[in-house]
Amino acid sequence: MLTANATGVCVICPTPFTPDGALDEQSAASMTEAYAAAGATGLTILGIMGEAPKLDGEEAMRLVRIVLQHAGGLPVIVGVSAPGYAPMRALASRAMEAGAAGVMIAPPTGLRGDDATLSWLQGAAEAVSPAPWVLQDFPQANGVHMSTRVIATLAADERCVMLKAEDWPGLDKITTLIGMMAKGEMRRIAIYGGNGGLFLPEETLRGSDGVMTGYAFPEMLVRVRGRLAAGDRDAAMDLFEAHLPLIRSEHQPGLGLAVRKYVLQRRGIMAHATIRAPGPKLSDATRAEVDAMLSRLARRDPVALKLAAE
Amino acid sequence: MLTANATGVCVICPTPFTPDGALDEQSAASMTEAYAAAGATGLTILGIMGEAPKLDGEEAMRLVRIVLQHAGGLPVIVGVSAPGYAPMRALASRAMEAGAAGVMIAPPTGLRGDDATLSWLQGAAEAVSPAPWVLQDFPQANGVHMSTRVIATLAADERCVMLKAEDWPGLDKITTLIGMMAKGEMRRIAIYGGNGGLFLPEETLRGSDGVMTGYAFPEMLVRVRGRLAAGDRDAAMDLFEAHLPLIRSEHQPGLGLAVRKYVLQRRGIMAHATIRAPGPKLSDATRAEVDAMLSRLARRDPVALKLAAE
Amino acid sequence: MLTANATGVCVICPTPFTPDGALDEQSAASMTEAYAAAGATGLTILGIMGEAPKLDGEEAMRLVRIVLQHAGGLPVIVGVSAPGYAPMRALASRAMEAGAAGVMIAPPTGLRGDDATLSWLQGAAEAVSPAPWVLQDFPQANGVHMSTRVIATLAADERCVMLKAEDWPGLDKITTLIGMMAKGEMRRIAIYGGNGGLFLPEETLRGSDGVMTGYAFPEMLVRVRGRLAAGDRDAAMDLFEAHLPLIRSEHQPGLGLAVRKYVLQRRGIMAHATIRAPGPKLSDATRAEVDAMLSRLARRDPVALKLAAE
Amino acid sequence: MLTANATGVCVICPTPFTPDGALDEQSAASMTEAYAAAGATGLTILGIMGEAPKLDGEEAMRLVRIVLQHAGGLPVIVGVSAPGYAPMRALASRAMEAGAAGVMIAPPTGLRGDDATLSWLQGAAEAVSPAPWVLQDFPQANGVHMSTRVIATLAADERCVMLKAEDWPGLDKITTLIGMMAKGEMRRIAIYGGNGGLFLPEETLRGSDGVMTGYAFPEMLVRVRGRLAAGDRDAAMDLFEAHLPLIRSEHQPGLGLAVRKYVLQRRGIMAHATIRAPGPKLSDATRAEVDAMLSRLARRDPVALKLAAE
Repeated sequence: MLTANATGVCVICPTPFTPDGALDEQSAASMTEAYAAAGATGLTILGIMGEAPKLDGEEAMRLVRIVLQHAGGLPVIVGVSAPGYAPMRALASRAMEAGAAGVMIAPPTGLRGDDATLSWLQGAAEAVSPAPWVLQDFPQANGVHMSTRVIATLAADERCVMLKAEDWPGLDKITTLIGMMAKGEMRRIAIYGGNGGLFLPEETLRGSDGVMTGYAFPEMLVRVRGRLAAGDRDAAMDLFEAHLPLIRSEHQPGLGLAVRKYVLQRRGIMAHATIRAPGPKLSDATRAEVDAMLSRLARRDPVALKLAAE
Repeated sequence: MLTANATGVCVICPTPFTPDGALDEQSAASMTEAYAAAGATGLTILGIMGEAPKLDGEEAMRLVRIVLQHAGGLPVIVGVSAPGYAPMRALASRAMEAGAAGVMIAPPTGLRGDDATLSWLQGAAEAVSPAPWVLQDFPQANGVHMSTRVIATLAADERCVMLKAEDWPGLDKITTLIGMMAKGEMRRIAIYGGNGGLFLPEETLRGSDGVMTGYAFPEMLVRVRGRLAAGDRDAAMDLFEAHLPLIRSEHQPGLGLAVRKYVLQRRGIMAHATIRAPGPKLSDATRAEVDAMLSRLARRDPVALKLAAE
Repeated sequence: MLTANATGVCVICPTPFTPDGALDEQSAASMTEAYAAAGATGLTILGIMGEAPKLDGEEAMRLVRIVLQHAGGLPVIVGVSAPGYAPMRALASRAMEAGAAGVMIAPPTGLRGDDATLSWLQGAAEAVSPAPWVLQDFPQANGVHMSTRVIATLAADERCVMLKAEDWPGLDKITTLIGMMAKGEMRRIAIYGGNGGLFLPEETLRGSDGVMTGYAFPEMLVRVRGRLAAGDRDAAMDLFEAHLPLIRSEHQPGLGLAVRKYVLQRRGIMAHATIRAPGPKLSDATRAEVDAMLSRLARRDPVALKLAAE
Repeated sequence: MLTANATGVCVICPTPFTPDGALDEQSAASMTEAYAAAGATGLTILGIMGEAPKLDGEEAMRLVRIVLQHAGGLPVIVGVSAPGYAPMRALASRAMEAGAAGVMIAPPTGLRGDDATLSWLQGAAEAVSPAPWVLQDFPQANGVHMSTRVIATLAADERCVMLKAEDWPGLDKITTLIGMMAKGEMRRIAIYGGNGGLFLPEETLRGSDGVMTGYAFPEMLVRVRGRLAAGDRDAAMDLFEAHLPLIRSEHQPGLGLAVRKYVLQRRGIMAHATIRAPGPKLSDATRAEVDAMLSRLARRDPVALKLAAE
């Protein structure tokens, strides 16, 4: 079960598809194993970057089962966000029965004001009860602003164990929340960064407990956090900067996931880069740009790279 | 099967719930029969006003089956809108197998530009194929603008049989589309008004083929259209104006559905006014205002009113 | 000077233009006099419906001076909303010097969360100081949600004298605020309804102090409030319902102002119905619909109507 | 006068303020000279990053005059975007009289659909006529999607000389537009990248004619473009990557401008980092992070750095 003491790198898993759009079960298995081998301390599936709304209910549960089976005991968090509570309750209950460690909840678009946001999320926590849950603060995706007061109120719920902090800009918000916890103004939960790793060094140095993102080289996330923990900021920054052009490209709205899947395919982590329709396709020019980034990266960070044969 | 020759009043059905939030199957049956008795020529379920995103898949199909069973042969249209194609395909296929006459599709939030909108909807039509489908143009709900060019291009698909025209303001758009069809610039499909009936007389006089809305007195929709067809505009307007205060109250974003369900409960059409959580509740003050509107209405339009005992 | 004791009907004035788009000074004068004669207790200019962002600074001040000159001593409120404080300060200071009674402020789009909204508006109040100011709560126009807590905090400022309450739905919010003032949880300010008069009877019965809107027959607003004050609800509703179809048409986003100006032209209150570019134009079909509404209205409410010769 | 043959680096200038919020004329002069010395081929003022909506009309013209006076003959483009045409016409006319080389126009929020966008912009071009104008495609800021068809139609206007391409992701759009120009499907205009330089190498290699952005080290923009023109991609990328962490931090919505002004103050290019209210302030933690980035940058790119004494 996920607890508020979680730390490390929780990898957001994309959902692999075959070229004809079917769930690619084999790649789901190999991807899970690759992420575990990369040093992940947890996995998150069926999030926004997991194309969850494109799956039907049966497919979602098939993915849950495959990832759980291959995760080697790592905690698996299942995104259950939906506009209504009933589908959230149904998926949370089935996922937890199957062995998930917790669920993740982001509010839907259209909530207005602190009170409405708080009330919606409290109802959602009730709906997925007794699952431990991660609060996702991601206004770029849903337009919902969460004040630190709203977050602190939600954190008072014992089952709320983690915040995926993706407000942008959001570093001062992380600092504020950690300060509130230190002063006893908020119950202690795990604070994880996100946003594709775009501010990984800063988030880590601000005191976040981990990072939950799907950057195509999770080894980098592990190693940057390790170097920072060892006090070697310059080595951490050297590594981070080598990856930053690709982080930047994966962070593009809409297209970013297509870039990420293409890199995962190049790495052999999934067999196909398919985005299920409706979704973007990479142009030849973009693929060439990603190839160029990977070539430079292979020279700048040879450790991490085991690219598929070109 | 729904065709492009449809006319009349297609009632948008709310989903009845018991006070504890369970699907109220008995009310679903009685509501269906009441609407058929009111002169509806069709029914639409699982639309935006049907709280569809709050149902899980099994509940949605239970509602489909009950309404089909009690519709007395009226065509039933099933809303299948979702952010991804797979859930749309799954629901459309099960609903058509169960006996639905067609499906309704509104695009998700976030589409930008004519080309993206067109392409998303063409993919959606493919996903629900071979079901006949209704295009819902409702930018107030999803922020997606549909140009007349986009609508005409979609209408070229033989399976596209109807437009639910809810742009606001939208009367000139209806006139433009009807003109395009007359000039052969667009394939002929049925144009139905919507928007809670707020512009029913004008929509009808502009040449729309019907109205698809869930106003709590569908008899009024039938009778206003009848009086207009008979050329008696003043009688039509007298009736329409008597209902306009309540139409206005049901048209409020968010709260409108709670008003509508309260009226349906007062009329004995459903047993409870429950909105499934998350959703608004009527205050005592609002209920008193609706009661006052119903009292006036009982005096101004005695024909239509068979209110539940107070 | 505007005070928190204001009551009655404050008419939102459109800005009249000649057919070539110039400020129509003569119509500005005649409109002002017509509104005063209609029983207005105040006037508001340069609001959202006043096409304020289409005027340059010199034109705005010309309109301020004309309206002040012809208002016969009625208090004139000047809309000063802008994304930045400097233009607000400049216009407020010039308008107050010219004799305005106060200013009106709505926040700009893009504010997220109670704290950001509060802080922006407190800065704005400072910028226009020492002018008395009206807070406009109009989320449909700017996407900014204002909680009752935010409104109560702003009302603590002595210079904040009035709320233009246009949240939608918003009747329960009015009731909540009035309750907070009664319990001493909020400083007493004047609460005015808005939203084109769409909920005028309900707003009045909930206890609002007045209404600030630009409906083309302000006499109706005055008379409905008078009948309600006299306890004759049915007479008030009879009058309100006769006007409701036109209220509905003026309430349409974008197009509503074109309808309103057309009616004001038909009434002889302004010489032209011109909307300054960029803006919508009425189609022949829409004009015919408005003509039909006015004909019905002339029969149902003969007192108010002195339409221009057709 | 700006022409469609423009190339190079056009620097977006922030507006300098003194700590009490007044226009800092001395810094405006020194900033202009610093940008010219850095190799800029043009300057843009009063854009979104220039806090234009916070200036009153007189201040805006004072800034125009100072920058023109110190630009050493570089073409100066003046942002004139506003919700209405009259203020655009007034500012464009005064700026061009004062010696500006052209104006820049972004559409306001709220336009829906290709036709409305096209029509609004055509009216805007007419309003600023005969000034040469730059079309700013920046949906992240205003929510307006511009299709390539809309852009090509606008480019048919002889006075339209440049596109500031800031759609995101937007590289394929640049490629499409350049392809349309090559095939004669669109009149040739200058295509400039933007987005804070976040995709500078890719934009340049895709064939853009220049970049218009306000990154705090415009020398980097000049040098990266130079190295790419010389065919030395690796050297270009080395330089770009050294700056990417800071580019990333300046690209944050809202806060980015505060970061940029702080760097410009550290560099001695402006005397103060003040953002005029309403606006964000940098926390101590953020300032320390920027300091750390500048220290690393000083080691990685010593050429560009002449930081103010700490």
